[in-house]
Amino acid sequence: MTILTLAGGVGGAKLALGLDRALTAGEQTVVVNTGDDFEHLGLHIAPDIDTVVYTLAGLANREQGWGRQGESWAFMAALGALGGEAWFNLGDGDLAMHVTRTERLRGGEALSSITADIAARLGIASRILPMSDQPVRTVIETPEGDLAFQHWFVRDRCGPTVRAVRFAGIEAAAPLPAFLDALRASGLKALVIAPSNPFVSIAPILGLAGIDTAIRVLRRPRLAVSPIVGGAAIKGPAAKMLAELGHDVSALGVARCYAGLVDTFVVDGADAGLKPEIEALGMRCAVLDTVMRNDADKERLARAILALAENGA
Amino acid sequence: MTILTLAGGVGGAKLALGLDRALTAGEQTVVVNTGDDFEHLGLHIAPDIDTVVYTLAGLANREQGWGRQGESWAFMAALGALGGEAWFNLGDGDLAMHVTRTERLRGGEALSSITADIAARLGIASRILPMSDQPVRTVIETPEGDLAFQHWFVRDRCGPTVRAVRFAGIEAAAPLPAFLDALRASGLKALVIAPSNPFVSIAPILGLAGIDTAIRVLRRPRLAVSPIVGGAAIKGPAAKMLAELGHDVSALGVARCYAGLVDTFVVDGADAGLKPEIEALGMRCAVLDTVMRNDADKERLARAILALAENGA
Repeated sequence: MTILTLAGGVGGAKLALGLDRALTAGEQTVVVNTGDDFEHLGLHIAPDIDTVVYTLAGLANREQGWGRQGESWAFMAALGALGGEAWFNLGDGDLAMHVTRTERLRGGEALSSITADIAARLGIASRILPMSDQPVRTVIETPEGDLAFQHWFVRDRCGPTVRAVRFAGIEAAAPLPAFLDALRASGLKALVIAPSNPFVSIAPILGLAGIDTAIRVLRRPRLAVSPIVGGAAIKGPAAKMLAELGHDVSALGVARCYAGLVDTFVVDGADAGLKPEIEALGMRCAVLDTVMRNDADKERLARAILALAENGA
Repeated sequence: MTILTLAGGVGGAKLALGLDRALTAGEQTVVVNTGDDFEHLGLHIAPDIDTVVYTLAGLANREQGWGRQGESWAFMAALGALGGEAWFNLGDGDLAMHVTRTERLRGGEALSSITADIAARLGIASRILPMSDQPVRTVIETPEGDLAFQHWFVRDRCGPTVRAVRFAGIEAAAPLPAFLDALRASGLKALVIAPSNPFVSIAPILGLAGIDTAIRVLRRPRLAVSPIVGGAAIKGPAAKMLAELGHDVSALGVARCYAGLVDTFVVDGADAGLKPEIEALGMRCAVLDTVMRNDADKERLARAILALAENGA
């Protein structure tokens, strides 16, 4: 029996870690957004995959929300002195990931194969799949023009107003075959959409050919966890995007994005009052403690979600 | 008036630093071997250029003889855990050089342009020129087969016997135009062959089309400093190569390599006894303290060499 988790970066990685701890080895497959990937300094950077990999390997910097714990920064200091582009921080240890992945990609190996090998070397029990082996690149449309996601997110600190989000290359990108297999597997127990940004973490995954439809017709418990708690995002620009794209800045606003896709929408106790409106969308609303401050929180939330799935969500 | 120095790695960088200190800004042009360059982990590594750049910028690790002082090694530790090729040590700060240079080369910029920009950013007063903008790759022919230079030198620790040395690509590589200009400049005061390995540091420079001939007919003082002192190399495999390639393992053996190319051959006091045999080759033999233990030694040797040049070598 497997749990299929759809995830972006930090929030997704937290729940994926909880599920990893709550399940036995190999029971969780995490499909990770690659729309945030970009080429920087000639290196292929895959921020969401790295966050999930580092988190599940116990190597993540938990305070920072990205990169590795105990990281050093000699590379960035030297890069600045040489006149290199220094707006995107790459830690010294983290660079090993980008350099070795870039070298292997240039040698013709698929991102999924590299990711699987690295996860195995780091002793990760869950299966981590990039959503696709073909490039999909999230573009933020703003009044100042189109911006590649990391330029908007990191370089411009989410400043420019978001008019729309699009995913360059998504028509040509195929969902990873192993992702499709996991969706169709007879052993699939439940689908879990992690508390990730619906517009830039989950939408690219759902936008791959056939995925949205496959999930709509899936006869398994389908659950999503709200990344918005009490009207604010736990991390990242989800609240700003909800507002600027004309949605309610609330768990309800997120629930509306998933209408028809999930059977159960999980909100935090702070949002219990939204339950009637969420259930009016045609989904159950489960109220749990969704804020994951430590590993015990993550595992507790994961077990509660598994219990919902067990009971048919 | 300019001094044109031909250099490889450590020994060449030491004398280049001495000349840099003894001359005024811009008076020294250092032409550096690129035969040791190689692609590793998808990065373009130029060990001799880096040693000269780091040395002249005051950033070199003097004990180690390569890389940067105060270097950290988080990248290598992480690379090993990810299964990357870890036989060639790349320090965290050093990586900035390789990453930014590789990115700029891929973008179409010439190695000479990148090197000049980086030298300027690091405040280096001498001009540093790669011998060519086209790739030349030193190959060590051994009983175990042909080995790329860094594989023989670093990975195999100079173990396999050297049967011959060749320079792949040298016919197609043009000497850097600025190198030719410096050789022909009316302001050229002297040519100095640094105490570098004659077979793998100086031979590739001399092997570029027209260079050997241009030096043979050059009507300026031409000096070379022996990298062999008392029958041993100060650093690196020069002595082993002399022996295995059938030469005398001595300053005399090196002097024979430069017969017809230099007017004056500089040996250390330890080798004063070789003077008659060296002068029998048709060159003067100057005896100086050539072992450079510290910056004062480097500048003293440089000033002594400049004095020889001043007196017509």
